[in-house]
This record gives sequence, C-alpha cells and structure tokens, in this order.
Amino acid sequence: MTDLNKMFNPDSVAIVGASNSEGKVGYIIVNNMINDGFKGNIYPINPKDDEIQGLKAYKNVSDLPEVPDLVIVSIPSVLVNPVVEECGEFGVKNMVVITAGFKEIGGDGVERENQLVALGEKYGINIIGPNSLGITDSHTPLNASFSQIMPPEGNIAFISQSGAMMVAIIDWSVTSGIGFSKIISLGNKAGTTEIELIEYLSYDDETAVVICYLESITEDDDFVRTLRKVSYKKPVIILKSGSSSAGAEAASSHTGALAGSDIAFDTAFKQSGVFRVTTMDELFDVGLAFSKCPLPTGRNLAIITNAGGGGVLSVDAMERYNLDLVKFDEKTNARLKEAVPEEGSIKNPIDVLGDAPVIRYKESLEAVLDSDDVDGLVVMVCPTASADADGIADALVEGASGFDKPVIAVNMGGPIFENANDVLRDNGIPTYVFPETAVKVFDYLARFAAVQDRNYDDPVGELDDVDKEAVEEIFAKVKAEERDTLLGSEAYAVAEAYGIEAAPIKLATSAEEAGQLAEEMEFPVVLKIASDKILHKSDIGGVKVGIQSKEEAEEVFEEIMANAKKAHPDIVPNGVEVQKMMDSGIEVLVGMVRDSQFGPMIAFGMGGVLVNLLEDVSFKLAKGLTTDEIAEQMESTKVMGLLKGFRGEAPGDIEAVKSAIIRIAKLTLDFPEISELDINPIFVYEKGSSALDIKIKLA
Amino acid sequence: MTDLNKMFNPDSVAIVGASNSEGKVGYIIVNNMINDGFKGNIYPINPKDDEIQGLKAYKNVSDLPEVPDLVIVSIPSVLVNPVVEECGEFGVKNMVVITAGFKEIGGDGVERENQLVALGEKYGINIIGPNSLGITDSHTPLNASFSQIMPPEGNIAFISQSGAMMVAIIDWSVTSGIGFSKIISLGNKAGTTEIELIEYLSYDDETAVVICYLESITEDDDFVRTLRKVSYKKPVIILKSGSSSAGAEAASSHTGALAGSDIAFDTAFKQSGVFRVTTMDELFDVGLAFSKCPLPTGRNLAIITNAGGGGVLSVDAMERYNLDLVKFDEKTNARLKEAVPEEGSIKNPIDVLGDAPVIRYKESLEAVLDSDDVDGLVVMVCPTASADADGIADALVEGASGFDKPVIAVNMGGPIFENANDVLRDNGIPTYVFPETAVKVFDYLARFAAVQDRNYDDPVGELDDVDKEAVEEIFAKVKAEERDTLLGSEAYAVAEAYGIEAAPIKLATSAEEAGQLAEEMEFPVVLKIASDKILHKSDIGGVKVGIQSKEEAEEVFEEIMANAKKAHPDIVPNGVEVQKMMDSGIEVLVGMVRDSQFGPMIAFGMGGVLVNLLEDVSFKLAKGLTTDEIAEQMESTKVMGLLKGFRGEAPGDIEAVKSAIIRIAKLTLDFPEISELDINPIFVYEKGSSALDIKIKLA
Repeated sequence: MTDLNKMFNPDSVAIVGASNSEGKVGYIIVNNMINDGFKGNIYPINPKDDEIQGLKAYKNVSDLPEVPDLVIVSIPSVLVNPVVEECGEFGVKNMVVITAGFKEIGGDGVERENQLVALGEKYGINIIGPNSLGITDSHTPLNASFSQIMPPEGNIAFISQSGAMMVAIIDWSVTSGIGFSKIISLGNKAGTTEIELIEYLSYDDETAVVICYLESITEDDDFVRTLRKVSYKKPVIILKSGSSSAGAEAASSHTGALAGSDIAFDTAFKQSGVFRVTTMDELFDVGLAFSKCPLPTGRNLAIITNAGGGGVLSVDAMERYNLDLVKFDEKTNARLKEAVPEEGSIKNPIDVLGDAPVIRYKESLEAVLDSDDVDGLVVMVCPTASADADGIADALVEGASGFDKPVIAVNMGGPIFENANDVLRDNGIPTYVFPETAVKVFDYLARFAAVQDRNYDDPVGELDDVDKEAVEEIFAKVKAEERDTLLGSEAYAVAEAYGIEAAPIKLATSAEEAGQLAEEMEFPVVLKIASDKILHKSDIGGVKVGIQSKEEAEEVFEEIMANAKKAHPDIVPNGVEVQKMMDSGIEVLVGMVRDSQFGPMIAFGMGGVLVNLLEDVSFKLAKGLTTDEIAEQMESTKVMGLLKGFRGEAPGDIEAVKSAIIRIAKLTLDFPEISELDINPIFVYEKGSSALDIKIKLA
Repeated sequence: MTDLNKMFNPDSVAIVGASNSEGKVGYIIVNNMINDGFKGNIYPINPKDDEIQGLKAYKNVSDLPEVPDLVIVSIPSVLVNPVVEECGEFGVKNMVVITAGFKEIGGDGVERENQLVALGEKYGINIIGPNSLGITDSHTPLNASFSQIMPPEGNIAFISQSGAMMVAIIDWSVTSGIGFSKIISLGNKAGTTEIELIEYLSYDDETAVVICYLESITEDDDFVRTLRKVSYKKPVIILKSGSSSAGAEAASSHTGALAGSDIAFDTAFKQSGVFRVTTMDELFDVGLAFSKCPLPTGRNLAIITNAGGGGVLSVDAMERYNLDLVKFDEKTNARLKEAVPEEGSIKNPIDVLGDAPVIRYKESLEAVLDSDDVDGLVVMVCPTASADADGIADALVEGASGFDKPVIAVNMGGPIFENANDVLRDNGIPTYVFPETAVKVFDYLARFAAVQDRNYDDPVGELDDVDKEAVEEIFAKVKAEERDTLLGSEAYAVAEAYGIEAAPIKLATSAEEAGQLAEEMEFPVVLKIASDKILHKSDIGGVKVGIQSKEEAEEVFEEIMANAKKAHPDIVPNGVEVQKMMDSGIEVLVGMVRDSQFGPMIAFGMGGVLVNLLEDVSFKLAKGLTTDEIAEQMESTKVMGLLKGFRGEAPGDIEAVKSAIIRIAKLTLDFPEISELDINPIFVYEKGSSALDIKIKLA
C-alpha cells in the first residue's frame, strides 16, 4: 500500500512558487499554511525574493536545510517537471502539483503529464495532481490548498475530482454541520490515484468515512478486490458522474444490447462493497450519518415523533428502503405505556403527541433503545407550541449515550432548531430537516453492516477441470481462417472444454460423416449449414429438424449443401453441422459483454426469443465473482421464479445454472480475446441443463 | 364551486374561546389576529371577560353588531356544536374549528363530528377542521392560526393535513426562501375538503402553485375530472403519505381517515394532471420553482457552469429525467464563441471556466436565452476565487428579465451566496444548492406545460352500441341462482352485449344441443364441463379439445358429463360448454380491479400463463379515461413491443385492443356489481382480436 502519511502529516512543507503578491495562488497557499495552524517548518521557494510573507525564502528546493516531507508546486507548467526532477534527486517523497496545463489541455500538455508520471515513478514520489486545488488535513492541521476557508474539523474524508466543487463544498459545509478530516482535490490524478487514497484513508484513524466525487475511475487491474479490502473496514461513498460508453460497444449481441451504458460502474461498485449515490445531497447526507453514528446490527428501525404525519412519512420511506418496522416486545410496550398518554401511539411509529414535554421523549427513547429488537432510532421533532427544541436535544444526547446504536434526529424546521442541531451533531447524532432523509441514511448504515458480513469466496478461481489448451487450439484455427465468429460446432467444443453442459454439435464435411455423427448422437437430430457467412440459414433451406435415421441424415446433407450453393454460389460452407435435438426446458440466457475498464460482465436472465423485449437480466463482473453474488444475480431476475417452480410446474436445476455462470466467467477471464458470448437459450431441466445456441465472437 | 372568498379575505373575524391567559390557544389566535396585520374587525367571544387583549369581548356570536365573515372556534369539544348552530342561525358562512376531540378520538367524537357536518350542511357553513391549526393568508393579511410565526409572503398555497408539520414548515420557510399566499391546516376535513380548497385556489390570483401534504383523499364522485379542471390552469403538487400498507395503518390510527391502495392514488393523480412527489424536500423544491418561474414550452434545457463537474452532474440528471440537452444553432454558437474563452466549452453544458467574470456569465446566458431552441436554463456558480456571487446574481436577474423562460440558479455553497440567493429569489429566479435539484424542478415545469396541452376526450362516454339490458338479465339470472361467478357462456354473452370480440362459448344441456352448437361454430371446437363449483376441470376429464364433427361433440358431451358425475357425484353441472377453437395470436390481458375510492381500474398487459411472473401490466382508472391515456397505458408495457411487430413478426391490431379497453371500462362503470374481471388471454391478430378466457365475478 502507498504510504501517504507524510503527505498529510508532514513536519516540513516547501511551497514552490511562493509569492508576496496578494491574490496569486502562491500567495494564498503560503498564507493558508501560515494562518491555518500548521506547526511544522514552512519553506517558501522563490527565485527572486529572500522573504515571503515574513518567512525566509529559498531559491531552490535543494537549497533547503532539510528534505521537506511535502512539496507544493504552483509555477508555470513548463517549469514543473524540472522541479519534480530536482525534488526527486533531493529525496522528496510527496508532492502536490497545483499547476494546470497538463493532460486537460491536450497537445503538449499530454506529453508533459506523461513525463511527470515517469518522474514520479523514477524517484518514487507520490504526486497528487497536476491541476489540483490542493489538500487539507484538519487534524494535522494543514491547509495546503487554494481554499480561502479552512474546512471545519471532523472525520469525513472528501476526495473530489472537481476543484471548483471542492471549494463549493467547503463553503457549504460551514452551514451544514459537516466536518472533514481531509479534503483532497485529485486534479488529473496522474500520480496518486483515488484508489490509493481510499486505501490509505481506510487506515486513517481520523477518518470514519470516505466520500468521493469522481468523474472517472482509474484503471486498476483488480478494482473490485482492491476496494473490497477497504469497504469491509470503512464506508466508502461515491458519486460518480458521467456515463460509461463501454456497455454500448458490443450492442450487436443480445447481452450487449441489454447492458446499459452505466451498468459496469454500477456493478463494479456494488461488488466492491462501496456505495454509489446519485446526487450531491445524498453524498453528504449519507457521509454525515456515517461520520456520527455507531453502526446498527440489523434493519429494525424505530420511530418516535410528535407529529403523526411525520411518522407516516417515515414508514412510507422505510417501505421504499425495505427496512423493518420493529414490533415492540411486552417489556418495551409496558415502559412506553408509562411514558406516552393514551391518545398517543405506542405502536411503532411512536406518537408522543404535539404537546410532548422533554421527559416524554426521554422515557420513550430510552425504552426503545433498551430493546434488543431495535437496531436504530429516528427521533422527530416538529416545533409545536410546547416543543422544547433544546431540551429534547439534550435528552436525546443523554439518552442515546448509554447505547451503542444509531440515533438520528429529524428537526423539522429552521431557526428554532439552530442550537439543538449544533448540540446534537457535536454529540454523535446527525440531524436532518425531513424524515425521509433520516430513514434513507439509516438504510445506508444498515447496508454497511451487511457489507462487513459479506463472504468473499472465489468459485471461479477454484475451478480446475477446464481444458484451456483445447480452447487455445480452436481459437488459433478460427484466427488462422480469418474468421471472428465461431461455428456452432467450435463453440460446442469450447463449451465442452470448459465443462459447460451443451447440446452436442459436430461438423460433417461429407454425407457419410453426417450420417455417422447423427448415429453417434441419439435421434432425432438437426442438420444445419455451417458457415459464418450465411446469416439467415433457415430462409435458404439450410436447416432441417427432426431427422430420424442415418440414411435421412446422409440425404439431408446433400440437400442442404445444394440449397446453400444455389443461394450463395460464391460462399464455400464449412460443411453441415449435426446437432442433437434436446427436450425443451426452462429457457435462460447466460452471456458476456466485455467492459473496457472492468473486463467481462456476465449476464443472466430469461432466455428465448423475447429476451430483448422482456429485458429480464442481471449483470455481474467476472473478476472477483463470489458464490453469494451469483445467487443474488439470479434472485434479481424474474426467470428465477420459473427455476424455483412456478405455479406447480417442475423447478429447474439451479446448481447447473450456477455452474454455467462460473464456467463462463472462467472462460471469458481466461480468454480476453472473446469479445462477445451469448448462450440463448440454455434449457434448464429438473436435473442438469443444456446450452442450445452458443455464439462466441473473437476480437 | 364553493365560495371561500370571505374565509380568507374576511372583513370581520370572531374568535370563540378568546382568552387573556398567555399560552392558551385562544390567546395565541387573538394575539396573531391583532399583531399580524389584520385590518378588519376582531371580535373576541368569551362568556366571562369583557375585554380580551384590549378588545371589547362579547358573550356570544349572536351578540355581535354584525355577522362576522369568519368565526374561529377554540373551546372544549362538547361546546362546539351548539356554537356552530348559533353561528348558523346568526348567518355565519365561514368557520375554522381548532378544537380537537372529534373523529380522531373515536367513540363520542365520531358522533360529534357527524353532527358538526350535518350542521354545516344545514346552514350552508364552510367549515375548516375540526382539529385544525387554523389558516393564514399573507396578502389579506390574516393569521387565524395557532402558528406563532406569520409565514413569509409569497404565492405558494400550502394545504396540510398535519398541523404539526404545518408549523414545522412555517419555521423552516424562514430560511428556505419560500413564501406563502395561504396556509391551510385541514384537520379532520369534516366540512370543507382539500378538493374544494384546491378548486378555490385555482381561481386565486395571489396563488401561483398549490402544494399539499395529504394523508387521505376525500371521497369524491369524480375526483379525476374535478382536478383536471384545476390542473390545466395551475400546478398542484401533492405529497400523499401512507402509500405503504404499513403507512396506511399508521395513517388510520392517526387521522381516522381511510387510505386507499397506492396504485389507485398514483393512477388517479396522474390522470388528474396533478403531480405526486414522494418527499417533503421535493414538495418544496418543486413548489419554489413554480412560484418563481415562467413556464417552459418544451423540454430543451441549457446549462451554464463554471465547474465542469457540475455540468456533468446536470447532464446525468437530465438523462434520468429524460430532458433534452439542446444543441445550439450556429448563431448562438457564434455568440458563445465571443463570450467564452477557447479552454472553456460552448457545447451544452457551457463551461465558462472557474475564472469566469460576471460579463462572461452575462453574455453567455443572453446568447442562450435568445435562442428559440432553448426552453429553459440552469446557471451554476461554484465559489471559485474569482467568482463574484453577487455580481453574477445581478447579471442573471438582468439577463433573464428580457425573456419569458425559466432560469434556475444553482449556487453551490453556503454563506457566500446568502445575499445572492435573496436577490435571485426576489426576482423570479429560484435557487438551489445542487445541480440535480435544478434539473429535477425543470422537469416538473416542463411536465406542467405538457399537462396544459392534454386532450381530454371521453371515448367511454361516447360508446352507445352496448346492450345494457342483456347484461342486466344475465346478472339477474346469476344472482337468482345464488352464484357470484359467471359461467364462460354467460361471460361470453356479456362480452357480446358490450361489443368485446371473443371466442364464442355456448352452453349445451344435452348431447344433441352440443352437437348442434358445435356445428354452428366452425370446427374444431372445445367442450368443457360448465360449473362454477368444479375448479380443476381438466384433471377430472372435464375438458376435451380438437373436436372435429357433430357426432364427436355429441359423444364427448356424454363422456364429460359422466366424468364429472364420477368425480363429483354431489355437484349438478350446468351442462357442457362448447367453445370455438381460435388461432393463436399475441397474448394480452385486459382486466379490472375495483378500488373502493376511485372505482374500476383497468389493467392492460402481457397475457398468458406467466402474467403474474412477468408483471408487465399498467393501470388506468375507468372514470374519465381518455384516448391518450389508453395509448399511454399501452405504451408503458413491454407487450406493446409485440403488438408493434417484434423482430419482423406480424404486428397486432392495436385498435382492437383499445376498443376492448374502452368497452371493458364502460362495462365495469355501468355495472358496479362487477367486483372482478379478467380476460386472459386475448389473442390479438393482425386484424381483430379474440378474448379466450373471460372471468367475471359479482360482488
């Protein structure tokens, strides 16, 4: 793991481009370093001035009396790389490059950025940027940034790929009750990536939660596995803007058409255990909750409110998020009966009524938190004439302190709650204005607890009964013939080599061979013209089903070859394929579409001719695929209802389908040259399955 | 329409239960009336004191020198009805009953509320409440409420079924930039309903948008048609809680109101042209937009931003809301090229860069608004070092004022924008913190423009070729036989009477008749035992398909009757039904479920045995159903893809399906005793259709 400790906790910082001219970036940064509490040595570097803002200035980094732990660079872009080289020679290990004019401007800038990356690698320097607005650490404290406000202290680490939005958030945080451990402006992330930073932050004791605004994900050979190591320890919440174009690439296959443009990111995040949000509001609402709350151990939520309407809205939201409305046990009921007057409600959501005094809130919340059935609590206050906002806040803080359970406040109003909100947030209780938000963030808290319980096995990696060489040979032959699409018989051979149950297809190049192959299979068989160039095989008389004898097969061979010749005199077919006719079963589809960033994505769903109409399909990345994820993938489709036995019909062999998914994941990971794979349908029987139509395309 | 003018603009107001004791409701209301600017006469009514808060008090309403335009009642519940009676005799026409202790407490309270309603009807009094927190009108001005804060003035009318949440919103509005024309606490809405209020507000010049928090919808004979009259004039936004079954429970325990099933509400709101939102945030975000903006004429949105990231987030949100990212024409491009430096982007979203001065914003926004292709504009400002928040706000106000198009500001930050936000909101530009919200509210603005363009015809009402008497006769017979389920032959006769194309089914009570009926149809036919008591007809040998001749039909009749007798010696079947076997077609389902509040809901979707697995179905209320809505209903299903001709297959007769929907709507509206109706499948052919299996159940 990249050691970024001295990046954020340096004992000494040099600012290259330090300036005495107010308003200049080099001025602001030195000013921030001096005034925002940094306790170590600050070294302004400037070729002209001897003193910068009262500090002794140096002409070069290499003139310094010590190797600085961190160097900030804000000089014209053409001068940056020589400085990085100098720093490297001098032994600097951490740099933040503020200067813009690199990859983002194209042309020269791209080359300049490549050189910067090379220098970083050569000298082992961690480089944040270029085109970064800098970094802050409120615990060090360190404001090595462009931001004129030092962000409020807290335990949220915020990584932003947009500098302007980082500044916006810092300003907004002042009124939102959000506090930060570190803020990092990624810039072009030429050196240190968001993935390295997230990994580093997962070990940072001052950070409880990592929230990210990202416009791209850095290519990483094993994104999912890397982030899993983090996400089971610490919540990571990502707002990823922009859509991936990868999914659309292979739209010619069924699977490709089904994969939406954004599905690869969605799937990758889900399998990594990080949370994806879709709006800025959500990013910070959820971040705030994780920064304050202990984690729940389940999804049982209780609600206390002084307005019935708020209770109803909460329950509506709970249903949207699939949370459980606790039913209180007798002991809790008895305590609540003591606390709440009869006209109220002691059934969850608890209605303490509009005239509720502080003591009624306090007794109710203690009764509820004391129950083992309750995993978390939302307490809502409407500013009725008798509501004592501050008193209730104090009661909440006191009451909640005795329990290691998340308590979330909804203070529905404005100025009345200003002080109460401060008190609550300072004491580990996040507050929101509306009940729906509180319920939503509890869902995230509970989902993180579930992420921690995940079981990461590796059924694909454990597979060893596959014949890789056989497939290599087939592919070599296909490539040698300058084809990109496998014949049915070749695809069958590939399936066979990887243990995927399929209906046998063999290629016959003579009538005699056709007869022989047909006899080796069980009758009836199908004969089909074999050529990747003839697309509408049925239309030209190239397919004949229900063949019952050796003799018939021999005859039909000649017939089909003649039909093909007549229709396409210019095409020389590979022969005629003989396929065993299978009993029909439940029709499913398993396919693969390859994402340029995350590799093979395996599709599972309802099969048959209506695949693209019904769109009953679910995707998982092959890399890192676990047994639980396959089960989840299957459960999220409607065809699973058929496999379980729909309305008294026979069920399908679910294990056989799982095996097919695992084997196709293995095959497509082993062979990056497979650009598309579609099996539709697979007939699933009560015992076993059979792939009917396998399409494999090579890149 | 109910005349509520003097309710909100009274010249004189009496407060029954007026008090000199601080903290009492009767004190607060008089205090609010005096201090929040009411200009008419205020008459405190109190049996004991001669003076209340400096005003002459009267013992009874009937002692007053004039008939007050409005009477507020806040006295013990048992005393309320006598006062209402007194008011009625005296000629009072508008009352607000603050007092609680009516339907919501059950028992006596229910009876008390019934009496109150009866008195209101007897004397023609508009009664808001009981159990209301009162009403406010910031233009009159009138604070006839419990709220200690007079809500800020504006043009949003807010109707709330929860008093506590009303108070919360008033407090919150102080910081949110929201202003109100009227705020109405509905209470138990025993008298004046939310529907009457919405209708009244649609004519109120001081109200630009009506927003409602509702826990139930008052039963109204023609909800959809009533609200349509409003919603094409003025936007109505409703947060209806209690959508979940669990939420509905809480709602009934709280207000005593009956919450309907959620799909009925969804459908009713959609067909009414009102907007349903799911969270409080959304209710006010959208309300703010309508209160400030002119309406767009289309869905083409332009974005100007000084942070690339914000542009990307906006575009992501636009994709979610199906909005169109305008491509600028050459003229606009040329103007933008002048305004924006090369490193920026003049392609939508326009990136004016982090260093954008005010003039760059101003020129860009004028160029964009001047283009006829642009229906609306979102302008985003991140507080970069060079961003002049106030200057940009002024430029926005000035620039936008020349165009009748919605301009929405995103000021991403906190304190820096405090003044700018005030300036913008005061000048018709709503402001939000995050870009996603701005995009979302524009979607609502554009959707309202579409609501105004709706075409409300009445294809169901225009239908006149139906034979109602024939159906009455059939139902009478079924009821006489004490059955609730129609036989197939009866259901066919009903379909025939209403012009629904169906496969003929006739009942034979003898072998001879069976043969004759079969011959009258075309062969082949099916014979099926006719009895509503025999459920699994095939299992007992009660069904025989593919019958090809008269003789065969006669034989099979006897065979089926014998099988039935053997299996169920105690059941006397009605006979054997003869049905014509139809060619198969595209299978669709048309059905009806009856909502207790909104009447028949017509379902359309994919038919066949997998109906409940695929859940490809869409609902519309039969009442007020329009041609466009039927088209919309069909378009929202996947089976529509089959009807349009899927992958080269023959299309289905869409007009035939529409006709079936209209006729089933008519049938189920004409006969409220039909509790359930299911036709699955209807075979749809290239020309025409045929209902195969029609199930009709009577209540």
